[in-house]
Amino acid sequence: MQRLQDLAAIGATPEGGVCRLALTDADRDARAQLMAWMREAGLTVQVDAIGNLFGTRAGTASADGADAAPVMTGSHIDSVATGGRYDGSYGVIAGLEVLRWMDAHGIRTRRPITLAAFTNEEGVRWQPDMMGSLVHAGDLPLQQALDARDRDGLRLGDELRRIGADGALPVGTIRPSAYVELHIEQGPRLEAEGVTIGAVQDLQGIAWREVTIEGQSNHAGTTPLDLRRDAGLAAARLTVWLHALAERTGGGMVATVGQLALHPGLVNVVPGRATLTVDLRHTDAAVLDSALAELDAWLQALAAGHGLRIGCRALADSPPVRFDARLVELIEDRARARGLSVCRMTSGAGHDAQMIARIAPAAMIFVPSAAGLSHNPREHTAPADLAHGARVLADVLRTLADE
Amino acid sequence: MQRLQDLAAIGATPEGGVCRLALTDADRDARAQLMAWMREAGLTVQVDAIGNLFGTRAGTASADGADAAPVMTGSHIDSVATGGRYDGSYGVIAGLEVLRWMDAHGIRTRRPITLAAFTNEEGVRWQPDMMGSLVHAGDLPLQQALDARDRDGLRLGDELRRIGADGALPVGTIRPSAYVELHIEQGPRLEAEGVTIGAVQDLQGIAWREVTIEGQSNHAGTTPLDLRRDAGLAAARLTVWLHALAERTGGGMVATVGQLALHPGLVNVVPGRATLTVDLRHTDAAVLDSALAELDAWLQALAAGHGLRIGCRALADSPPVRFDARLVELIEDRARARGLSVCRMTSGAGHDAQMIARIAPAAMIFVPSAAGLSHNPREHTAPADLAHGARVLADVLRTLADE
Ligand SMILES: NC(=O)NCCC(=O)O
Ligand SMILES: NC(=O)NCCC(=O)O
Repeated sequence: MQRLQDLAAIGATPEGGVCRLALTDADRDARAQLMAWMREAGLTVQVDAIGNLFGTRAGTASADGADAAPVMTGSHIDSVATGGRYDGSYGVIAGLEVLRWMDAHGIRTRRPITLAAFTNEEGVRWQPDMMGSLVHAGDLPLQQALDARDRDGLRLGDELRRIGADGALPVGTIRPSAYVELHIEQGPRLEAEGVTIGAVQDLQGIAWREVTIEGQSNHAGTTPLDLRRDAGLAAARLTVWLHALAERTGGGMVATVGQLALHPGLVNVVPGRATLTVDLRHTDAAVLDSALAELDAWLQALAAGHGLRIGCRALADSPPVRFDARLVELIEDRARARGLSVCRMTSGAGHDAQMIARIAPAAMIFVPSAAGLSHNPREHTAPADLAHGARVLADVLRTLADE
Repeated sequence: MQRLQDLAAIGATPEGGVCRLALTDADRDARAQLMAWMREAGLTVQVDAIGNLFGTRAGTASADGADAAPVMTGSHIDSVATGGRYDGSYGVIAGLEVLRWMDAHGIRTRRPITLAAFTNEEGVRWQPDMMGSLVHAGDLPLQQALDARDRDGLRLGDELRRIGADGALPVGTIRPSAYVELHIEQGPRLEAEGVTIGAVQDLQGIAWREVTIEGQSNHAGTTPLDLRRDAGLAAARLTVWLHALAERTGGGMVATVGQLALHPGLVNVVPGRATLTVDLRHTDAAVLDSALAELDAWLQALAAGHGLRIGCRALADSPPVRFDARLVELIEDRARARGLSVCRMTSGAGHDAQMIARIAPAAMIFVPSAAGLSHNPREHTAPADLAHGARVLADVLRTLADE
């Protein structure tokens, strides 16, 4: 899949990965490249007001009939700062290759097929993640998304305009009849079990919190332990406690403190302030909610016990998602028909499919990630697996687009 | 002490404190101001090759006799990034006021009195701390100090030249007959006990370490807990363990993680690398050494148990210091003679006096710090206490300079 490697050159990092944060210059360049390829493939390109990019291949059915709603596939082309070459981009480029392959083989479908690249899926620069698809699904008001601010205070809407990605299409215009997203697993399971295709039947709930701990900065040499209000120590206790909570809860719960800043951050000063993020996930909404309630209670006790002020702000909350049962079966079926091993599975990561699932039947196809590595420059999927995934996607899209 | 407030205007922060990191533009401006005041007070100003600043008031004894060695007082005028107005600057400005007061009252002394402001006492930009006085004492080679690099890779020697603070005087030229440093306590004890003057008889040992933890960055949603090599979680465990070590060791041991950076530092990425500092202090060298050995062993076990690579680098190591018994008694005596309450005490902070103690009898005078706050913009000492400390310093200096 040469175009996948070509796209990875935009925002390439010395470690062999990709840094293409949403709405940066690298994202702008990647968008331009993708749109050029879409036009080259004869697709009709449209950009909506949140920067979601759509390329549509016409169907044979009449444009105002019951079959006018397109089947949609796609993903995103933004990355985390230490991203790999496959997360998101694979689904977009594979979708493009499938449409080109249909052209090359003279294959026409009744319904149009739309290839989508959603804005700011990663959510590392602006929260929540899966932002473009959430706006598309109508569950995040456009204005609220445009007004989001990144760590440097930059407004999403301003950055969107700066890179010329603010399109004319009203958000949510394209209502698909079905949505299928092809993606790397980003986890270790398919490789560990020697399975080629994952038919993703659900996706765990995701809660992101920003916790701010205020204590008192003081001298590291002269302040007795019992007189300290050490925000850094409290952040450390939280990190350790959170991990234990996830272990204790079980059922695949994961908890991560990925971001942490200490203020003033000096070797001989007791930290007066700590700001950190919590990423908590579980497949069962009730279990996730009760863990979040435990977190709140624990933070209150921590604050009271150590003379701290603690704030906890929601950055994102996506409930668990169950994908469309018939689509999942179709994916299984088409994988088997090609002689590929397939298993049903849960997605640990958030995906645009979970948002589009709110407005159309949706499901996902996973292919293995080497060593389960993702959000890491060494993210890798074997070329043969990339091709297998694309073939299953092609078969599923043809079926759906001829229904 | 108006000049103390005037000096605080240089590098003043909105919070009411001072940010005057060593060899920054603010340090340059403060040095220029101090030298102007020194010259105005009739002192002979000299700057050595590491930027230590000396202002000498001549004595009445012949310049080549046995009484030619000056009594020295002083401290430093650099600050931490979130510093207060008193740490260091108080000792320097009070020394200046004492010399001006002697002039005003026609007081001559046999020995010269030298007022010193040592370079980079805080050690937050370049390690080790107390760098200028350590070089002056001959225990850190000049070249090694000049070659130190800050977080941005800037060489101390280059910054010294940039601000024109690289003087012509060979380091270590001025050998004092005695050294007395006046300083705020920076801790809570004097205030808590209602005592005005601390006669500092010893100073705890200080060990600074930079710990680097390398794990593997991976996706926060898809990576099961048992497959993670989470450098941030390991850093948190270290922080919590270190605090427990200090509590368990007791005897006033303090431990601080003041600085911590996670890489890549993103909400949905398991941290692949953590870099943090450890500040560990105790008055007993053997206790400190054994705690450091425990730390090493614990880090090895942590690395082995969690698939991490951990490095631990010494940034500074100052053994505990016992000050000159006769000087401590003299301070006590002069405080009592003025009707001030006085107690013997240990310094929790590092000070230039501990380095000069290697080449001359040395001791320190402490005054109370409000609420024990220091390395904090709200650092404060009551004007009356500032004046008391300066009077005791004056009496001690007169005695020593007439011996
Ligand atoms: N697929 C993916 O990495 N999405 C980012 C959102 C998440 O953190 O799961
Ligand atoms: N006095 C003072 O704050 N010195 C800085 C060195 C230390 O960390 O103790």
